[in-house]
Formats: sequence, C-alpha cells, structure tokens
Amino acid sequence: MTVLITVINANTSEEMTRAIERGARSVAGPGTRIHAVTPKMGPAAVESHYDEALAVPGLLAAIADGERAGSAGYVIACFGDPGLDAARELATGPVLGIAEAAMHSASFLGRGFSVVTTLSRTRGRAWDLAERYGMRRFCRGVHACDIAPLELDRDPDAVKKTLAACAAALDADGSDAIVLGCAGMSDWSDQLGAELGVPVVDGVRAATLGVESLVRMGLRIGTRDEYAPPPPKPYSGLLRDFGGREG
Amino acid sequence: MTVLITVINANTSEEMTRAIERGARSVAGPGTRIHAVTPKMGPAAVESHYDEALAVPGLLAAIADGERAGSAGYVIACFGDPGLDAARELATGPVLGIAEAAMHSASFLGRGFSVVTTLSRTRGRAWDLAERYGMRRFCRGVHACDIAPLELDRDPDAVKKTLAACAAALDADGSDAIVLGCAGMSDWSDQLGAELGVPVVDGVRAATLGVESLVRMGLRIGTRDEYAPPPPKPYSGLLRDFGGREG
Amino acid sequence: MTVLITVINANTSEEMTRAIERGARSVAGPGTRIHAVTPKMGPAAVESHYDEALAVPGLLAAIADGERAGSAGYVIACFGDPGLDAARELATGPVLGIAEAAMHSASFLGRGFSVVTTLSRTRGRAWDLAERYGMRRFCRGVHACDIAPLELDRDPDAVKKTLAACAAALDADGSDAIVLGCAGMSDWSDQLGAELGVPVVDGVRAATLGVESLVRMGLRIGTRDEYAPPPPKPYSGLLRDFGGREG
Amino acid sequence: MTVLITVINANTSEEMTRAIERGARSVAGPGTRIHAVTPKMGPAAVESHYDEALAVPGLLAAIADGERAGSAGYVIACFGDPGLDAARELATGPVLGIAEAAMHSASFLGRGFSVVTTLSRTRGRAWDLAERYGMRRFCRGVHACDIAPLELDRDPDAVKKTLAACAAALDADGSDAIVLGCAGMSDWSDQLGAELGVPVVDGVRAATLGVESLVRMGLRIGTRDEYAPPPPKPYSGLLRDFGGREG
Amino acid sequence: MTVLITVINANTSEEMTRAIERGARSVAGPGTRIHAVTPKMGPAAVESHYDEALAVPGLLAAIADGERAGSAGYVIACFGDPGLDAARELATGPVLGIAEAAMHSASFLGRGFSVVTTLSRTRGRAWDLAERYGMRRFCRGVHACDIAPLELDRDPDAVKKTLAACAAALDADGSDAIVLGCAGMSDWSDQLGAELGVPVVDGVRAATLGVESLVRMGLRIGTRDEYAPPPPKPYSGLLRDFGGREG
Amino acid sequence: MTVLITVINANTSEEMTRAIERGARSVAGPGTRIHAVTPKMGPAAVESHYDEALAVPGLLAAIADGERAGSAGYVIACFGDPGLDAARELATGPVLGIAEAAMHSASFLGRGFSVVTTLSRTRGRAWDLAERYGMRRFCRGVHACDIAPLELDRDPDAVKKTLAACAAALDADGSDAIVLGCAGMSDWSDQLGAELGVPVVDGVRAATLGVESLVRMGLRIGTRDEYAPPPPKPYSGLLRDFGGREG
Repeated sequence: MTVLITVINANTSEEMTRAIERGARSVAGPGTRIHAVTPKMGPAAVESHYDEALAVPGLLAAIADGERAGSAGYVIACFGDPGLDAARELATGPVLGIAEAAMHSASFLGRGFSVVTTLSRTRGRAWDLAERYGMRRFCRGVHACDIAPLELDRDPDAVKKTLAACAAALDADGSDAIVLGCAGMSDWSDQLGAELGVPVVDGVRAATLGVESLVRMGLRIGTRDEYAPPPPKPYSGLLRDFGGREG
Repeated sequence: MTVLITVINANTSEEMTRAIERGARSVAGPGTRIHAVTPKMGPAAVESHYDEALAVPGLLAAIADGERAGSAGYVIACFGDPGLDAARELATGPVLGIAEAAMHSASFLGRGFSVVTTLSRTRGRAWDLAERYGMRRFCRGVHACDIAPLELDRDPDAVKKTLAACAAALDADGSDAIVLGCAGMSDWSDQLGAELGVPVVDGVRAATLGVESLVRMGLRIGTRDEYAPPPPKPYSGLLRDFGGREG
Repeated sequence: MTVLITVINANTSEEMTRAIERGARSVAGPGTRIHAVTPKMGPAAVESHYDEALAVPGLLAAIADGERAGSAGYVIACFGDPGLDAARELATGPVLGIAEAAMHSASFLGRGFSVVTTLSRTRGRAWDLAERYGMRRFCRGVHACDIAPLELDRDPDAVKKTLAACAAALDADGSDAIVLGCAGMSDWSDQLGAELGVPVVDGVRAATLGVESLVRMGLRIGTRDEYAPPPPKPYSGLLRDFGGREG
Repeated sequence: MTVLITVINANTSEEMTRAIERGARSVAGPGTRIHAVTPKMGPAAVESHYDEALAVPGLLAAIADGERAGSAGYVIACFGDPGLDAARELATGPVLGIAEAAMHSASFLGRGFSVVTTLSRTRGRAWDLAERYGMRRFCRGVHACDIAPLELDRDPDAVKKTLAACAAALDADGSDAIVLGCAGMSDWSDQLGAELGVPVVDGVRAATLGVESLVRMGLRIGTRDEYAPPPPKPYSGLLRDFGGREG
Repeated sequence: MTVLITVINANTSEEMTRAIERGARSVAGPGTRIHAVTPKMGPAAVESHYDEALAVPGLLAAIADGERAGSAGYVIACFGDPGLDAARELATGPVLGIAEAAMHSASFLGRGFSVVTTLSRTRGRAWDLAERYGMRRFCRGVHACDIAPLELDRDPDAVKKTLAACAAALDADGSDAIVLGCAGMSDWSDQLGAELGVPVVDGVRAATLGVESLVRMGLRIGTRDEYAPPPPKPYSGLLRDFGGREG
Repeated sequence: MTVLITVINANTSEEMTRAIERGARSVAGPGTRIHAVTPKMGPAAVESHYDEALAVPGLLAAIADGERAGSAGYVIACFGDPGLDAARELATGPVLGIAEAAMHSASFLGRGFSVVTTLSRTRGRAWDLAERYGMRRFCRGVHACDIAPLELDRDPDAVKKTLAACAAALDADGSDAIVLGCAGMSDWSDQLGAELGVPVVDGVRAATLGVESLVRMGLRIGTRDEYAPPPPKPYSGLLRDFGGREG
C-alpha cells in the first residue's frame, strides 16, 4: 500500500516547491508517494516574522486539503517551521518541520552543529527553534550567507557563497556538522557535504524520512490534551472558511 | 499631548473587547488615550494553537490601522501573545503581550507565581511563553479553571470557580502571586486579590502600563537586524492586502 | 542494493535478542537487512551502572565485527545507550541508541512524554540521557514498573503491570506519550498504544528507522575532531585484542 | 492624590543622588512625587562586592525612613541592586532595583541586549543579576568602559568613552539594545540612544516607572512566606537600631 | 606548622558558636587550629533576608580581625552563606560558606539530595544558593522543619522533628542524601545519618575540610579581576571603620 | 589509625602512575596512606571515548582489589572520570573523579575557570562532565595544548607549551583559575600557578583531599536506590570474573 506524504512549501514560489519535491523524493522509500504543495495564499518569500505569520493560514489550508486527500503525514518545508503546533492539532498523522528534523538529525552526527541560513534577520527564529526542540546544546552558531531566499536559485554564485559561509561557520564554531537553514538550499546538500567533508543535513530530506518513520511505526501526535483537534467555532472576515476541522 | 495606545483583542467578541478596554483605562495615566479594538477577521475565541495562528492576520491588520492612526504603542490582549514578533516588526512604537507583561510584573512580587488560565489545553502555550520571556524560573505552575474563554462572563459561577482554582494553585505551588491567564478575567483582578490576600496580576493592566512606560522613556524595539520593518513583497490569495508596511 | 543494519543487544540473553530482532524487522524498509547480535561477552542483564560499563567491550567487539561484515549502521539496543560515544568513533556508518531514538521521536508527538522502565535504580541513567540529548524539557517523568529485565518475558503479568505503570505515569505527568524504557518491552508497543490511546514509542523501532534514514541520506558522524577514529595503541590484559580499528 | 516614590542612591555621593533624581523626575507621571535619598552611612562609591555589602545597612535605614514618611514604593538606584530581598521584606509597597528594571525593559526591545558598566570587576555581579531575573537569555554581554563610578561626571571624556564602549558592545554581541550599567550614567541615555540609533535603557527611569506602574495596579510583594515582614529581634553592636520593622 | 582556620557564626548566639566549634574541631586535621568567632554586631538569629543582610558587616569585621591574626582561611557558618563574595575580596586565604560546602559534598554522594532547614521562609535563599553553586540539578527539594534557629537547642523535640522532616524529605524527593540547612543542626549529623541510613551532610564539617584542603593545596581565590582586594575609599556613618583592607 | 586511599590510574603507563602518586602524597594528611595503582588491563593511554570505555573494566577490577584490601576510598585519576557511576556502586567508601574534584574546587576560587587539556578531541568529554557536575556555569572554556598524554613527560617543551595554553585560555575566557585537564600534568600545578599568578587546580590533589574529607566525615554514597551494590549475575566471555561484588 502506498503512503502519501504532503510536503508544504511556505511561500508561493513554484520553483522552490519543485526543489523541495526533488529533495523529498530523493530519499522517500518505495512505498511513499510525495505530494509537494504550493499554498494558495501567502508571501512570495519568508524573510521576516511578519512573512512567517502570514504564511500560516495557507499552510493550514494545505493541511486541510491533505486531510481530505488522505495524506498520512506532513512536512512543513520552511526553516522557521511556521504553524507547527496548529498543524499538529489539525492533522491526523504526524507533522514535522524541516528545522526540527534537521536539528534532531544533526544531533546524531556530532557534539555540535552550525546552521547556515539566508538572511541575518532570520537567525533569531532559528535560535528560538533550537531552544524549543531541546537542540540549543547542540546548536553552536547560526550564520547567514546573506542571500535572500528567492535569490538562492538566481544568483549564480549562491552555492559558492553558501559553501564559504559553511566553511567559516565550521571553523568559528568548531562544529561537527552543518544544518542548511533554508528549504531552498535542499538541492545542494550532497555537493556541500562532499566539498566540506562533514555531514550536511537538509531538513527537507530529514523531515520526509522522519514523517515516513513515524507513519511506519503507526505513531501520531498524542491527543489527550493540548494537541486534540481544535474546537470548531465561527471564524470571521477573510478567514471565515477556517472554522475548524469540520470546515 | 495625548498618547494613543491601541489595545487589541485577539478574538472577535465585542464583550471581551469592552472588558479589556475597562482594564486598560482603569490604570492608564491622564495623558494616555486607550483605543480597544476588535479585529475584523479571526476566531470567535482563542482556544487552540489553530485559533491563535488564525488570530494573527487580524491582529496585524489592526496594527497597520493603528500605525495610520498614529498609535504610540500596542497591547496584544490575548494570553498566548499571538503574533508578537511580527507585530514588533510592523509597529513603530513598542508592543507588549499580556502574558509577557503579567509574568514580568509578577516576577517583581515574589519568588514564584502561578498562572490560572481557562482551558487545560492552553497550558502548554503558557509554559512556552514563560520560557521565552525568561520567566520559567518564576512560573511554578500553570493551572486551568476549565471554563472556556467565552463562558467567563456567561457562567454565573465563573469568578467563584476561578477563585477556587487560584487558591488551589497557591497551595500546590507555594507561590507568592497569581497571574491571570486570560484577558477575559481582567475585570476580576482586584476582587481576587482582595479575597486571596496575594497579588493578582492582570496582564491587560500590566501591558498597558508597560507600553505607556516605554513610550514615556522614548523607547521602541531595536531595528538593527531581526526587528527591522519586514521587507515588502507580494502576498497572494486572501492575504494579498498584507504586502508589507507600505501596504 | 540491500543495506545491512546491525542491531546489538547489550546483554547476553538470546531471547531478548530475538525480541529486538522482531521489533527492528517489523519496521525496516524493503531494502534493509537486519542483523540482530548477542555480544560474546558481557552481563546476563543490564541492571546497574556496573552492568552497563561491562556491557561496553562486548558491544564494541560486535561493532568491529559489523565493520568487517560491511554493516551500514548500528543500533545499540539497551535503554542506557551504553558505549554510544565509543561506538560512534569506531563505526563508519551512523550509530543510534534506543533511548536516544525513542526520546527524539517522542518529542515529535507532544509537549511531554513519560518513560516507563524496569527497575527503579535505572531511572537516574534515563534522566542523564534525557539531558544529554536535549530531551529533558520533554521528559516529564521516569517511572519503574519494578520488573527486572529478564523477567519481562517470564512474568505472565508483565504486560499488565507495565500497562498499569504507563497509565499511572500519564496521569502523574500529564504527558502526551509513553517511551518504553527497555529493549525487552519492544514486543508490546502496539498493544500498549492501543490500550492506552496514546503514542507508545519503542526505541528499537525508532532507532532502526533512524539509522535507516541517516544511511539513506548518506550521513554519518562528523570526524573532524572528537569523533575521528580512535588513535590505535596497545591494549593490555584481557582487552589486548581491542587495539583500535586496525585490530 | 500624590504618590511618593523614594529613589535611594546606594553610595554617599550627593552629586550622584541629584543625577538619579533628574532621571526619575524626567519620566514620573504627574501624580508622582520623587524623593531622591543619599543614605546616612555607606561607601563613597560602589566598586566591589565589599562596597555593595556595606551599602545595604544605609539603604535599609532609608527604607525604614521612607515607611515612616508614607512612601508608596522604592527604587534601589545602584546597578548591583544591593539589598533587594531585604528591602522587599521591609517595605510595604513595591521595590525595584535599577538593574532589574532595566533588564526587563530591554527584553521588550529586542532579542538581546548588552550591558555597559563602569569597572570590569563589577561585571560578574551583572551576570548574577541577569540570571536571577531570568534575563540571561537576553543578556548577550556585559562590558566595562573602565571609568570608576565617581569619575563619570568628572572625566570630560566619559560620555565619549561610554559611547565607544556601547558601539563596540553592539557589534561584538549583535545586540538590539543597550542597558546602562550604572546609575551615574542616567543623564546620558537619550543622547546615547540618539547617537547609537538603538534603544538605550536607563534603569533609574525604568525602575521609577515600574514602581509607579505597580503602585497604580495596587500590587506589592506577596507576603505569604518568604517576603513576610522580618521577625523582630535584638540586633547588637553598631546595628542595634535595626531591630526589625517595629524598631 | 599549625594552620589557623576561622569559623564565623553569623548571629550573636554564643551557644551556636560553641556548636559550630564542636563540629569544625571534630573533623579538622591534626595541624589545623579552629577559631570559632561570634561577630561583634549583628542579629540574634538569621531568619530573614533582612537579618542576613545585617549579619554581613559583623562577618566582614571578623574577617578583618582574622587577617590581622594570620588566619589561613575562613568558614561562613550560616546556611545562607551571607557576604560570601565580599569575604572573598577581603580575605587572603580561601573562604567557604557552609551551604556551598555541604551541597558540593552531597553532590558526590548520589544523584540528588534534599535540604532540611529551619523556617519555611528561608527556603527561597537555599534555592538561590543551589543555583548559584551549580547544584540545582542535585537539589531535589528544600524542606522546613519549622523550628526557629534559636529553638534548635531549646526545643527538647528538635532532633525528633528534624529526623521526621528528613525522612519525609527523602521519600518526597527520592533523594540519596540529606543536607542540613542550619549551622545549629551541626551536632546531629552523625545521629541523623545513623537513624536514616543515608549520608547526612553538615556544612560546618564540610566547609572546614574544604578550606583545609584548599589551604593544603596552596589555593586561594583568583584576584585577576572581580575578586581583587576592594579598592579602599571613605565609608561614612556607622560604617566609617570599614574603609577597605587598609582599614 | 591509618586510612587507605586507592588512587587508580586509568591507563597502563607506570610513569603516569608514579606522577599521580606523587601528587596525591604531596597533599594527603598524616593519617592517610596512598596506594597508587596501574590497572591490569586497559589502554596504554586514554585519548578517545573508545579508550575511556575500555579503561573501565581494569578500573573496576582495581576497585574490587581495593575492597579486599580495605581501602577507605578511591580516586579515579583520569580527567574523563571513566566508570565513576559503576565505581560508586562497587565501592564501600567514597569515590571521586579528578575532573569532578578539580572543577568543584575551582568553583570556590572565582566566577569562572578554564580547563587546559591534552588533545583537542577530548574537549567534548570535559564539557559533558562540567555539565553533569553542575559546573557548566563556572567552566568558561576547554582548551587543548595539543600534546598527547604520554608525551607530557617526554616532550621537553611540554611545560612551556602548557603554560602558553593556560595563559591564552585565561585571556580568551576572562577566567579566574585554571583546571589541569590531565592526570599527567599533576607535577606542574605549583609551577604553573606561580608563573601564571592564578590558582591552578590539579585534580589528583583535589580528589585525594576530597576523598579524605568524606572519609573523615564518615560519608559514603547513598545506597537507597540507584547506587546500591550491583545485583550479582553471570558475566560471560572475557569478563566472566566480574560477576558482581560477591565475585
């Protein structure tokens, strides 16, 4: 039997959705079908807390769609892991964020890792997540390569710049591994790992396999209390279609 | 000169907005004008991570409105402090959440406080916030009185039940103070304090005074990096009107 | 191509090795071959720090054997995760402990989990590991069912007693999930999950899938510094055959 | 009705008391009367743990005086917040230290702040306080400008040197805000903020407004246990006049 | 050659000084001479933060006396360790507090200890110290036996009550050891240990041996920065004799 | 009566055992007899987690020998403190590791210390121990002098290189004290302390005095639960002689 995993891009760039899809499919098991989704509403790129907050309604709508399509689990493919708690209330199967999955995987690969992300202003969010996931003790530094997310596949020097940022991070932090801090870097993980000689973790791959593993073990979020389905209620204004699971 | 502080309810209940307004006005200084706002879109009540996530666009729209009206600062009047980081990017003046302000104030009033909130499922969020604000060392327990937010002013026994939950929390935690865990409890802080004989902190009051104090000191969030205004960009779907500060 | 994963029991009970093998095989992907191993030296059961320390040489010898057999990765199937750091220096591929994998997986399934283990005296080690892995914030309690490891499959009431300990732990800790604290409980995870209505995580399954995932992503421990192969040197006495990787 | 707030300098410099008074009055609300006090005994400056310890009896005597004068609350205007716990037992109204108030305020203004203080040897105390108040996660660095407290208003280059230390701290720490680490810097906060382009927090202002806010909310320290009035008893030697509240 | 260690009681009770002296002498090595001191000024008992603050000038005067007498090191024999930092600046040799020494020793004797102290209101200070010393992970509980310090040798049931409090603490906390939370309990440590069957640590003994050990290793506090001798300066009022080391 | 303390080298170098013996004897009290032991099996040097793991059986055998000889306590003289928990189960008297004792002692000597150890790859273990002992808040850095343990007494420049590494560490970390990170540096502590002008702590000395102190107070590990003697059982293979205390 085939298992459907929905991998949701948090911005509205179709190009980034295709890159995410490639990453997820490159590791998914033979029985897993990957559906990569671009949300119907949201920001063109996620570059701020403001963008992240406004990416969430589109993400949640994509999960509601996935539930109707029988999706067994979900990956939130944006390094800020936006809407993760809400998504876990909404979905029947497991949900992982790519920062979450990448950091956990990296913690198996050494005593410390460095995150290399896009813009400097997003580093605070990465630290927040490291703490939330218990990974602060492993996260030795969060570094920006100063390329905006949507420039990652337009700037011809993007890989080179990212490679340089990774090398500098490894030295500055004395780390054992690199965590790529943007879904848009997913295509480069093997190349960077080969050039740097250290494990380079792509969260899209890690989260896809993490969800696949939880599904194979028959595990989903506990619903005794905090993560029970959200109580249905009226939503007003633009959001009137979000009235809970029954919606 | 009068200073305008916008106090934003996170749900769409006008009754709760009025209660919040009463709380804020009861403490604001003579030179401060309080504008209490009900968002134009969002959930009827905030009872889950899902509700909280979907309350954020309406909150941010209210801040954009406030900016146009010359608001000097903002209070996010929902105990989950939804959208706080995004709001701080968007607003010119200071922004405080009521959980944030209440917990900080309570930390001045003893070695430990107990939070008494509405539904059990929201306790996790309160713990998250306590940690984020550095208040985990002061927060000894988060307790639910098991009354849904919108029942607070409908259930004739609501005060009595909340009082009992506070008393039980003080004993269980050995705390010095109570933090009220819902904007809808704002009306009761004096009464509960008098009956319990301990300081009872209402976040609406604390946040209103906190914003007023920051405004008086001429302080607003630092914009060197993470909290600079969000880079403008296209937003699609229902959110197409949210395209950054330039709006 | 088939991938070989070696799953190493830390005690010398063949029965427990068979149970571990069943658990690992029940979740391994179609391209994965599971080799479950009983070490050639070590304690009959692991019930103390002393037993754990003396289980390590046999575990490391099993890894050296696995390296010669081309094993792609390893699971240390004892909830104390004995010898994990040494194993990571010795092995070419990834190595996971079952406590490590179970705790990480459980952190995806709620805000807090409870560990249910065998003997009371082993609880300290579980707390140590929770801290080491960054999982202390998720680990709400470690509880003993007071059955010695080797009694788990002899005591006809063992499942019933473990079920009762799990139910009590969930209530006492307000947890969302259970982590089984002994490889010898691996057979029961589905049954316990069904009866308790919460996710019950078996570390043998979680670690097997964790190793399989790392192998699929081409990731192994970083060897820049701490986890480089151990410098070869003479070992004396009973351990003279352990002289480093070169053997 | 006018509210009296007593602001206590911890050393015996009248000049510093006047500077503190200016800072407090510049922000206090129209209904607040500021009484700035120089203690009758104590060190000429606070430059060591030893000085801080010996500043405490004079501070406590000033609070006893304030109680007799009907003071509604107190500010301890020395960045080491000496005697804070004892003061809270003694006073009927709220008591804030300036390090405490400044750090809390700064936590509302970004993800991290830097403290700039006088002498290098006082940095340890600032770290201690950051931890005690839960502010360690926000405090990214404590830096000395290497000017002794009493030189602050004598050294013609003091502002320039402090400005340079602030700029260096912001860069080294990647902070969003500055906390001034000495009451003697209170006069400079606006100027430094304007030149640096970041929020610069003066604890004298922040604590004055914090006490004013607590008074307006009718809140004072909880007296259920630790912070109940100190049990009266004989004090011998020089301190024989300190025999408890009844004194 | 004989080494002089000065053990300073923090209150003015001669009886307690004698008990402290007995404890220190019962363990000191043959080459060590113990001088137990009652301060010339201070509170009759230490039962509050206020008392603790006012005990410090007398303690520091006793250290200044000790320096003149050639004391090789000091024990601060009050469980709140009052004035420890100031004492370390003032003394040439090592200084230990009894809470500090007891907690460190207890951390060698198991995974967790329980503190049993006198009055409930002093528990907060014990937690503060546990954190400061890095011992919070070992300190599982702080419990009061509800006997005022000066009643310890007057109440004929004091040992019995303390024994009961210790037994209850061990059960509630699942601890391996007891730390006695008052210098006035020093006489009972052997008896309590024998009756409870667990290690019972008396801080007076532990600190005496700790200072003796540091002296034997030739170690004293580092004076590169924070703990250099306090800069001399004028002190006014009652404290005019405290003008620094030169005094 | 003479008290016997057994000091166990963790590698098989007789030269290092002699250095350890010198360190221990230089501080032990007149009534203490030091027995320094080279284990009968184990690695020639401890340079990796692998070496450390394989040092443990020999260490435990030495403790079993010590028990038969009536040893009152034990020092594990290797900076990784290998086998400490197991040793504490096995021994009747107290057991201290040299990293443990050195870090605790250094915490009495300032706000922060720096560890200077041999090879870079062992730094991770030192951080692990600092955390386990609650000493992370005091440990500001772990630095390697890049001399292999067995080269310490062969390289004529070893002291000079270590001195340089200590000086650099003090500057980089702003520390008050140095902790020597290898038993093989024991001979140099006085010389280094004199040249650096800061306290330099040798763990062999500190642990010897720590054990002596615990013995003098009549304290040993609590055996209520985790540290009770290990339950006897069959051990197979090379380790068949390790069958528990009854052995």
